[in-house]
Amino acid sequence: MGKYVLNFSQGSKEMKRDLGGKGASLAEMTKIGLPVPPGFTITTPACLQFYENNQKLWDKIKTEIILELEGLEKVNQKGFGDPVNPLLISVRSGAVISMPGMMDTILNLGLNDETVIGLANATNNPRFAYDSYRRFIQMFSDVVMQIPKYLFEQVLDKIKLHKNYQSDIELTEDDLLQVVLEYKKIYKKELGFDFPIDPLEQLFLAVEAVFKSWNNPRAIIYRNINDIPHDLGTAVNIQSMVFGNMGETSGTGVAFTRNPSTGENKLFGEFLVNAQGEDVVAGIRTPKSINELQEFLPEVYNQFIDITNILENHYSDMQDIEFTIEKGKLYILQTRNGKRTANAAINIAVSLVLENKISKDEAIMRVDPKQLDQLLHPNFNETEMKQVKVLTSGLPASPGAASGKIYFTAEDVVSAKERGEKSILVRQETSPEDIEGMLYAEAILTSRGGMTSHAAVVARGMGKCCIAGCSELIVDEVAKQLTIGDLILNEGDIISLDGINGNVYLGHLSTVDVEMTGNFGLFMSWVDNYKLLKVRANADTPTDAEIAVTLGAEGIGLCRTEHMFFDEERIFHVRKMILAKTKDERQIALDKLLDMQIADFVGIFKKMEDRPCTIRLLDPPLHEFLPKKDEDIKKLANDMQISEAEIYKRIVDLQEFNPMLGHRGCRLAITYPEIYLMQTEAIIEACLQIKDHKITPEIMIPLIADKIEFKSIKDELKSKIKQILTDKNEDLNYLIGTMIEVPRAALCADEIAEEAEFFSFGTNDLTQLTYGFSRDDSNIFLKEYLNKNILPKDPFQVLDQKGVGKLMDIAINAGKKTNPLLKIGICGEHGGEPSSVEFCHKLGLNYVSCSPYRVPIAKLAAAQAAIKGEDHDRI
Amino acid sequence: MGKYVLNFSQGSKEMKRDLGGKGASLAEMTKIGLPVPPGFTITTPACLQFYENNQKLWDKIKTEIILELEGLEKVNQKGFGDPVNPLLISVRSGAVISMPGMMDTILNLGLNDETVIGLANATNNPRFAYDSYRRFIQMFSDVVMQIPKYLFEQVLDKIKLHKNYQSDIELTEDDLLQVVLEYKKIYKKELGFDFPIDPLEQLFLAVEAVFKSWNNPRAIIYRNINDIPHDLGTAVNIQSMVFGNMGETSGTGVAFTRNPSTGENKLFGEFLVNAQGEDVVAGIRTPKSINELQEFLPEVYNQFIDITNILENHYSDMQDIEFTIEKGKLYILQTRNGKRTANAAINIAVSLVLENKISKDEAIMRVDPKQLDQLLHPNFNETEMKQVKVLTSGLPASPGAASGKIYFTAEDVVSAKERGEKSILVRQETSPEDIEGMLYAEAILTSRGGMTSHAAVVARGMGKCCIAGCSELIVDEVAKQLTIGDLILNEGDIISLDGINGNVYLGHLSTVDVEMTGNFGLFMSWVDNYKLLKVRANADTPTDAEIAVTLGAEGIGLCRTEHMFFDEERIFHVRKMILAKTKDERQIALDKLLDMQIADFVGIFKKMEDRPCTIRLLDPPLHEFLPKKDEDIKKLANDMQISEAEIYKRIVDLQEFNPMLGHRGCRLAITYPEIYLMQTEAIIEACLQIKDHKITPEIMIPLIADKIEFKSIKDELKSKIKQILTDKNEDLNYLIGTMIEVPRAALCADEIAEEAEFFSFGTNDLTQLTYGFSRDDSNIFLKEYLNKNILPKDPFQVLDQKGVGKLMDIAINAGKKTNPLLKIGICGEHGGEPSSVEFCHKLGLNYVSCSPYRVPIAKLAAAQAAIKGEDHDRI
Repeated sequence: MGKYVLNFSQGSKEMKRDLGGKGASLAEMTKIGLPVPPGFTITTPACLQFYENNQKLWDKIKTEIILELEGLEKVNQKGFGDPVNPLLISVRSGAVISMPGMMDTILNLGLNDETVIGLANATNNPRFAYDSYRRFIQMFSDVVMQIPKYLFEQVLDKIKLHKNYQSDIELTEDDLLQVVLEYKKIYKKELGFDFPIDPLEQLFLAVEAVFKSWNNPRAIIYRNINDIPHDLGTAVNIQSMVFGNMGETSGTGVAFTRNPSTGENKLFGEFLVNAQGEDVVAGIRTPKSINELQEFLPEVYNQFIDITNILENHYSDMQDIEFTIEKGKLYILQTRNGKRTANAAINIAVSLVLENKISKDEAIMRVDPKQLDQLLHPNFNETEMKQVKVLTSGLPASPGAASGKIYFTAEDVVSAKERGEKSILVRQETSPEDIEGMLYAEAILTSRGGMTSHAAVVARGMGKCCIAGCSELIVDEVAKQLTIGDLILNEGDIISLDGINGNVYLGHLSTVDVEMTGNFGLFMSWVDNYKLLKVRANADTPTDAEIAVTLGAEGIGLCRTEHMFFDEERIFHVRKMILAKTKDERQIALDKLLDMQIADFVGIFKKMEDRPCTIRLLDPPLHEFLPKKDEDIKKLANDMQISEAEIYKRIVDLQEFNPMLGHRGCRLAITYPEIYLMQTEAIIEACLQIKDHKITPEIMIPLIADKIEFKSIKDELKSKIKQILTDKNEDLNYLIGTMIEVPRAALCADEIAEEAEFFSFGTNDLTQLTYGFSRDDSNIFLKEYLNKNILPKDPFQVLDQKGVGKLMDIAINAGKKTNPLLKIGICGEHGGEPSSVEFCHKLGLNYVSCSPYRVPIAKLAAAQAAIKGEDHDRI
Repeated sequence: MGKYVLNFSQGSKEMKRDLGGKGASLAEMTKIGLPVPPGFTITTPACLQFYENNQKLWDKIKTEIILELEGLEKVNQKGFGDPVNPLLISVRSGAVISMPGMMDTILNLGLNDETVIGLANATNNPRFAYDSYRRFIQMFSDVVMQIPKYLFEQVLDKIKLHKNYQSDIELTEDDLLQVVLEYKKIYKKELGFDFPIDPLEQLFLAVEAVFKSWNNPRAIIYRNINDIPHDLGTAVNIQSMVFGNMGETSGTGVAFTRNPSTGENKLFGEFLVNAQGEDVVAGIRTPKSINELQEFLPEVYNQFIDITNILENHYSDMQDIEFTIEKGKLYILQTRNGKRTANAAINIAVSLVLENKISKDEAIMRVDPKQLDQLLHPNFNETEMKQVKVLTSGLPASPGAASGKIYFTAEDVVSAKERGEKSILVRQETSPEDIEGMLYAEAILTSRGGMTSHAAVVARGMGKCCIAGCSELIVDEVAKQLTIGDLILNEGDIISLDGINGNVYLGHLSTVDVEMTGNFGLFMSWVDNYKLLKVRANADTPTDAEIAVTLGAEGIGLCRTEHMFFDEERIFHVRKMILAKTKDERQIALDKLLDMQIADFVGIFKKMEDRPCTIRLLDPPLHEFLPKKDEDIKKLANDMQISEAEIYKRIVDLQEFNPMLGHRGCRLAITYPEIYLMQTEAIIEACLQIKDHKITPEIMIPLIADKIEFKSIKDELKSKIKQILTDKNEDLNYLIGTMIEVPRAALCADEIAEEAEFFSFGTNDLTQLTYGFSRDDSNIFLKEYLNKNILPKDPFQVLDQKGVGKLMDIAINAGKKTNPLLKIGICGEHGGEPSSVEFCHKLGLNYVSCSPYRVPIAKLAAAQAAIKGEDHDRI
């Protein structure tokens, strides 16, 4: 094992795996000569070793840390714990993949009752020294010792109330001395022992706390949400403190080299005068725009502009830069690729290509497919929007548009979600504890904080609409009330947020669709050139089909014919068909449905032109179509001239203990062959009615488990089709294939492929049966499985590559062995989920099919998979 | 392609695949010089070719048939269609594997209005000639043309009534001439054309009819029931007619070389004087014992005895021989290995070994494991039996004992089965149309027919209790009434049959278990020496465990702990546990259950001594335990001091759409860890209480789908066990393993085996999930699947080797790769089904586990698999 502790001067950006993102960037910036406060990094392998070592630091690493500290003392000409000229340091986590707000930070470490005096003397600013000290005690108590923050806030609030101060800045040296004494009392009262005075003890406790924070519940949830492995560990960065709170020529800020919301190539940032970094991120004070720095400290501003250009060119990407100005001297504390909205991501990627800074495939790799979702969500209807009241406006922190009921705590949002309600999380400001609520809310509204506040950053990451710093709002999280002027809104009231302009509307607003134009259109044309997988859409109606084509779908992968059956006009005939006592009666009802289905298919085929269309024959169990309400039963009984009792009896007859495993899919075709024959006739008739372009319909039989089962249905359909074509003296190419959604079909795919012309993986059912998890019932325990980290992901959202994926692999290999021309696709929910699309690419599928709005996401994921795949063989 | 038609003199017993069983035996008997009427066989490849040729005979085969006919004419010195000296022939089916009563036969073929006169003159017996002719027309019309039999019966009945005859024998030549005229009228009326007068046309139509009968529904059902492939085809045997109805020195009969019911080494058979073979098989006349032949025709009797000895020695097995005596001359028409009861099978096999005629492994191969079931069914309680009324007695045609409701048609039995009722099929006589009813009835009772009647033969084959020829009974199948003297029984009344002594009892009788002694015990000891698989039993109680040990179980493969929960005393505490609002409340209920479960396990462990025991922790969803009746809910509410509404609410909360895929098995352990901890504690405590022998309990976690899921539960159980053992300062070996019943567990078995110490395939659930068939709901469509031959077998009864078996194979290979010491068994219903046991042997499992009564069946199947396997490598 090599060294666990590396000086910034020893690292580079390539060493991210060991140094973490922040450590690697500090080292890189040091290497290229930028003004970085000196420091060193404790590596991620040290973190893993820490967990091996029962969560304790060991002697060797302590020695390494002490050695580096001595180096810091030398270069700063200060002493760690020196009462005259004390060295203060920051201790920050730095994971390999950025986890904003997840990991903990401690500033001003090294202060105690003695060094605080040294700091006061050295800076000639006792107020600053005591303010730093009280901040340090508060942060250390919170982060290292988990003492509740509010205990400390109360002390500050009491003094401010007592002295009638408006803000913290009014606190005097004496006030702060008093605060420090109170803080130390709280510490002792809560823990039973004194605040540690030995700076080295402070440091080791802080390092341990950072390491431990890797596995705090918030961090685990964040990693689960963001697909970050749990075994990376975090690095710890120890850095000499610089102070943004040393008076009016000091300050601290955050800037993006381009606009993170729009992608505009213009510096975008904020700073606070006389403040430490945490003040910016926490969003407690509303900061100034970075442009104001020019008037304020023009030289520093110019130096900063130069550095931002250097950094963006160095990393060939938009940078998110943290800086501090200590008494007029600029320090760069961090740079990283900036988080951005999907819109910005595309605009930046396209611009960088046009500026010849990156290649097209690099541009494609720069945009997170999951994020595209934002662009594909509809916006509010413009006309409606003009008719409703704008309640207030805030910062358009993350784009999108959403309506929902307001809730004031993350827990309430989660409960609302469980009840199936759409909700908007309203908070003064969000904190990492709110992550789950943010995930489940449609949108987030805060009264405090800027564009880089916790709420804004996390919402953008999630691709979720957010309006931040909406200062007219008074948010009472305890009373669960929102006040805007005279208006009081209560929990459950509906509002709408427009994340593009920051407007908050009263009531519900409907939405309209977006178009694929401009940079987005250009970007998607590059994507189309790189991807190998075709991307189709799941579409059941001409409207769906039209949206799908607009969003670039290359065909329909799944047209669910039963959705047509549920149509209000038709359900009546469907019910008559089911309740028919004779084959003739059933045929009369089916004949009515036939004409309707022909019209459906004609509508869809017209929209799809010559793109391929896969039509799945009836899948759900028949009882789903029967009436449930007494009035409907009565109406049906009257019309059919049978007793209501008879209908009730039939409903009871058709009930099943486990309908998901029951009489549905192709099993209906075995018992009621007429239904599939009618649907097949409708498909063929519709094809014959289309004269403008050539359709090759793909007729798909669901729930097949066996070759003979498939063949017996296929033979019936083929003879029906032959009869129609002969009668009309017409010719038509068509394919008959099957869903692979029952494990046995995957296991016996070699036999089935002898008869089937295509396979389409129905990964919803396949997941259900492979795990034995009912989608309808498993929520209760699946939640526990995810919370307890027993499952890394909900397998209904992200394809389970180990189990379900193995079945797919078996099916593909077996199917292609007996039928090398077999066409293979996927039409489960997973067809639009990026990691699942990548897996499908690796498996060598012909296409994925997903909901129309996810088509661009699937395309981008497919292109990225193809680009990654150039270095790797297909599995 | 060689010849499709072979003379008897050209074949041998080795050519069964082409000649069918009957053809091969006729050829073999011809070869060894026995008196077989000359003839030839149309081969099974001809039958397959017939189906290829659109079910028509083709020229080449017709030529071959005509050539062989000419040979027959020569050797018999008669002419086919010759009006003076006509050759008559029989046409019989002959499948490779015997299918009694399934295939069709035509006798006296070659008769027409001219040849009948020739026959009358040649035999000087016009009455015989016309009787033969009318029989031929009737048989041909039925078998070849499907004209309903009753139309012909009516004619006969009318004449008999009119002339006041008691039996057919009283019909005169003139009567029969009249009958023939009437029969031909019926033929023409039904079909619109005349009865064929050309003997060659008769023959070709008959051959086609035999070939077609291979695929009649009865034949298909028989093959499904008896595991006979559908692609074997049948041969057709054409043989010169000999006549058992040529007067008082003629006759026909059937004999077994040993007693087919007991196995006793004594000729056992029956014959009818002046009759054709069909009269014996149909059971219309009650025949005489074979011994009476000695007085009647002593020379023929002696010759027959010699032949039976030759045949039994030749085939080294008990033979079932058909013979005809034509005017004092003996002809052997057929020999085959005789069907026998399980009891007889074992006694014969053991005797043949003791007589040094076969080896022990041959003896083991001679007994059909499925048949053993008969021996393992309990008999009636002797004391009870003495107290109930014997209604009547019949022939003890097939052993066993059963009680049930009486039904008079196969359809009614099937409906009763669907309602879950046990039924007894009561018929005047059974026919092939009754097969399905016979399969589903507990037992069969007929008023007519002997020990070789259809009912008797089929029931013995099925291992089903049957009392035949119960002549005191008057069975009215239309009124659905049974009359015995003054007593009238109606459909649904309960009777009991004892197949050992032939007694019929009124009402229900309870049963006692059988013992494994005598030849059965000896035979099973041989079986134990040959088999490689261990055979365990599924047992949930000390009583089960005791029966299991008696029947030879080598351990418990599945102890379902939830069966203990359903006990009336306990269910109350189980409900309290489920409804508990706090962990403490739940713990109190669990503590009560703990003591009960300890007692359960102590009881079982005592019975099992040092045999291994696998205990499965709680599996079913909790809602199964909640009360359903209002009174139970009320009682529970009172006791728990909560409102009934609250209990109803909880019941609704726990309801699931697809409980089979829901919150059950190990998923309960993730949400309510206390339950498995209690059960584990009970197992460990019970082991510690047993001091006489050493228990190594195998704790089995159900429904595992993932390694981490398994590990998290295992770790909790292990730490609980460690705590118990430390507290008590005790030591105990134990294993923790898992069911493999979710497809994903099989697919990820390599990972799971890193943690699990054993696997047990739960093939019930695994079949359910692999097919996506709910056991509770799939009956409706599964029946259609079997009827339509889409599935060859009910996969819940016979393991699906292609799909489910493939998953097992994957799991075994993957599991053994990461854990070579992994112990693997099976505990689904399939563990006692012979073909599934053979498959488990081939897969290399360590054991199978089945219900106690199936243990000897599984053992025999395992031994047979091992014996067969000596010639084959394990797959």
